[in-house]
Amino acid sequence: VPRESRGAKTKEKGNSDCSIRLLNPNIATMKEDVLYHFSLSTGTHDFPAMFGEVKFVCVGGSPRRMKAFSSYVAQELGLERPGVDHPNICAGTDRYAMYKVGPVLCVSHGMGIPSIAIMLHELIKLLYHAGCCNVTIIRIGTSGGIGLEPGSVVITQQAVDACFKPEFEQIVLGKRVVRSTQLDDQLAQELMRCSKELEEFPTVVGNTMCTLDFYEGQGRLDGAVCTYTEKDKQEYLRAAYAAGIRNIEMESSVFAAMCGACGLQGAAAVVCVTLLNRLDGDQINSPHEVLMEYQQRPQRLVGYFIKKCLTKA
Amino acid sequence: VPRESRGAKTKEKGNSDCSIRLLNPNIATMKEDVLYHFSLSTGTHDFPAMFGEVKFVCVGGSPRRMKAFSSYVAQELGLERPGVDHPNICAGTDRYAMYKVGPVLCVSHGMGIPSIAIMLHELIKLLYHAGCCNVTIIRIGTSGGIGLEPGSVVITQQAVDACFKPEFEQIVLGKRVVRSTQLDDQLAQELMRCSKELEEFPTVVGNTMCTLDFYEGQGRLDGAVCTYTEKDKQEYLRAAYAAGIRNIEMESSVFAAMCGACGLQGAAAVVCVTLLNRLDGDQINSPHEVLMEYQQRPQRLVGYFIKKCLTKA
Repeated sequence: VPRESRGAKTKEKGNSDCSIRLLNPNIATMKEDVLYHFSLSTGTHDFPAMFGEVKFVCVGGSPRRMKAFSSYVAQELGLERPGVDHPNICAGTDRYAMYKVGPVLCVSHGMGIPSIAIMLHELIKLLYHAGCCNVTIIRIGTSGGIGLEPGSVVITQQAVDACFKPEFEQIVLGKRVVRSTQLDDQLAQELMRCSKELEEFPTVVGNTMCTLDFYEGQGRLDGAVCTYTEKDKQEYLRAAYAAGIRNIEMESSVFAAMCGACGLQGAAAVVCVTLLNRLDGDQINSPHEVLMEYQQRPQRLVGYFIKKCLTKA
Repeated sequence: VPRESRGAKTKEKGNSDCSIRLLNPNIATMKEDVLYHFSLSTGTHDFPAMFGEVKFVCVGGSPRRMKAFSSYVAQELGLERPGVDHPNICAGTDRYAMYKVGPVLCVSHGMGIPSIAIMLHELIKLLYHAGCCNVTIIRIGTSGGIGLEPGSVVITQQAVDACFKPEFEQIVLGKRVVRSTQLDDQLAQELMRCSKELEEFPTVVGNTMCTLDFYEGQGRLDGAVCTYTEKDKQEYLRAAYAAGIRNIEMESSVFAAMCGACGLQGAAAVVCVTLLNRLDGDQINSPHEVLMEYQQRPQRLVGYFIKKCLTKA
């Protein structure tokens, strides 16, 4: 099926809001689209057959964690196949890992804005080529907390930059382009309701600061480079808290901006656990088992949410 | 051995230029340093014993490629052990992979400035804790070329940003900090000489543009978002060429800036192969075998360089 007619078909099937809308007219006219970092191509893979039924996309930094999440979801949705592992769809590359469990697609994105941005460009094109509609996309991740008990989960209200502005800035053809990082308030509230029903761990809705660096960029005192004092750090983090920021990570702003640009802003959320309280320190030195349990919290919350959506439907 | 005395010992052994110099006074006073993203800690690992002999550090995006490089180096240096694989030193995490072959340490860094920056903070601290001196650090990577035959290798003269400036800008405690991206000209020339001796593939010394995005940030027409024309793209890439830029990748600027800040600027280089000529297109669609052979070229060049250095010594 050539992409042009598939795009048209998608539009006929539902209202125009439900389908993926690329902000790029070139894609519809391409004979083949190679998603290089997924090691997938429209010329060699049947995207509608492989991905057409996808309704939930969950993304997270670590490939191992996304594999674990796909197994958890399979178990929760009763989609396990005894003795059969869900294969890594991107096995041809080690840039990202991808697992599909029924209507749920799980994809790793590595660390930082550039790494998740490459993945999102190719993921959004994948969903477009597959003719997916009514897709909800959620980032499940780890973060540093501000003023929260470690292990708390933060559902992002607004993704803000290192100057606390709800903006994502990038350089396009040498010029500064700024995009909004708006996320859907209704989806955040629905996830908060799910956490209240679960009653397993503390959860808040708050702003998330997205930085380009883990050490200096987040005011840590323990990097190879640090040219400020503990007092400077505390002032910065307290100002962030006063601006409604409850956690710091490295992907939310471009995630919000790109989902917004491609018609997914009404169905995008960020759910991160906090591994430490940055007001108390910088090093992540809790025991391995404690950190492993923390990392499962966003998975349990989002797994519960997906199951609830599918049961209602 | 406590870190304080180890640091002192390192200084006694040689001149102050040869050892790793952290731009952070806090590290010397820490009782334990957890390198979280390596899953290594000074409290549980003996860094001087594990890494003290390291003289060459090679970093690259893909963990599989770095594993392949470590095997290649082992073979070149006669350090293979039949039936024994060099283990992944960071097996406790999937954020990065690390292999050590005699005096050569090979580490993956993922994609983009934030991902390599996290790795470099922890790598430079690792070399410091281990008391390493006279270390040469080389990034071996892939890139998009400008005006070069695909498969050409570019040795970076200057790493420049998306506005063609030899600067790395970051936000520290909400304020803009700019660092130089100077690399060592002598090392670049020595690598160029090695390539001439090898006579296996075309190699140039040129400027490398480092961007925060692979699609819009590099003027590609095939991302999920593209709001400019082919003509705009061509103008941008031709202006880059006129500014001496021969390839585009996503890590060189912070690599140069951090190595410079920590006393490694005289011993840091970037060697990337170009997978395509961006003046001719955006998609990476050469056959898999061709791309695999291209990716081995920086490995062959840097492997030859290391062997030559060790033979001379």
